[in-house]
Amino acid sequence: MENIFDDAYFMKKALQEAEMAFEKGEIPVGAVIVIDNRVIARAHNLTEALNDVTAHAEMQAITAAANFLGGKYLKNCTLYVTLEPCQMCAGALYWSQISRVVYGATDEHRGCGVMGTKLHPKTTIEGGCMAEGASTLMKRFFIEKRNLN
Amino acid sequence: MENIFDDAYFMKKALQEAEMAFEKGEIPVGAVIVIDNRVIARAHNLTEALNDVTAHAEMQAITAAANFLGGKYLKNCTLYVTLEPCQMCAGALYWSQISRVVYGATDEHRGCGVMGTKLHPKTTIEGGCMAEGASTLMKRFFIEKRNLN
Repeated sequence: MENIFDDAYFMKKALQEAEMAFEKGEIPVGAVIVIDNRVIARAHNLTEALNDVTAHAEMQAITAAANFLGGKYLKNCTLYVTLEPCQMCAGALYWSQISRVVYGATDEHRGCGVMGTKLHPKTTIEGGCMAEGASTLMKRFFIEKRNLN
Repeated sequence: MENIFDDAYFMKKALQEAEMAFEKGEIPVGAVIVIDNRVIARAHNLTEALNDVTAHAEMQAITAAANFLGGKYLKNCTLYVTLEPCQMCAGALYWSQISRVVYGATDEHRGCGVMGTKLHPKTTIEGGCMAEGASTLMKRFFIEKRNLN
């Protein structure tokens, strides 16, 4: 039987989170953390609602996943996030020693790739998973925001 | 009249926070955020107590200061932290656009300097403020930890 739990399956969950951020007027980024094909954390960007630059989707997901697991290391976990993590989030992922990071759209200006942020040696990272959905949502957000101002 | 509110004055407050972390068995790092000579946030590392890699002193202080100010940008604020910020914390400071960062001891392995993390162009950073107090506390922590194991 075909395994329905592929990367696209979980990235869709992250995109649903990004849509929730969009509806709240937040920069639309969503994330889920998965272990053994089970979603143990889901979050979306809340920097505006919480007035807090640290409230990125990934940061909240890391905290929630560690809380679920009862330990701070995210061994055997995969983070799915719609946008490439920034320095802060990649730095948090470094400390979490997460096994795998899968992101959607590349952030050419502030992504961890262009910024040169180091991930933990135990972590693999790959981008471009359902990138079009993520970047379409981002573009729509910034077009609507521009039109409102 | 002499101004008692110099960097050493506020770094002592950060060191008091670091001592509180030490007493809890946490890696002893403390931080305060100051605006107009007034401490608006104080925090210490709680990664063990909270089982959360994101619970560094700086992260909590950033969240608390933004909450106090009612806005997410830390303009005209100074962060005093006993240890050089890591990638995650420097990344958070980047987003906060904080005006000034003063740290104590240098983290030669995981500090933002050696890791090459970018701060915001609006931010100045300087190290070595009461560095001996901070690094003595760190050394004591790791010696005691080693002896316990």
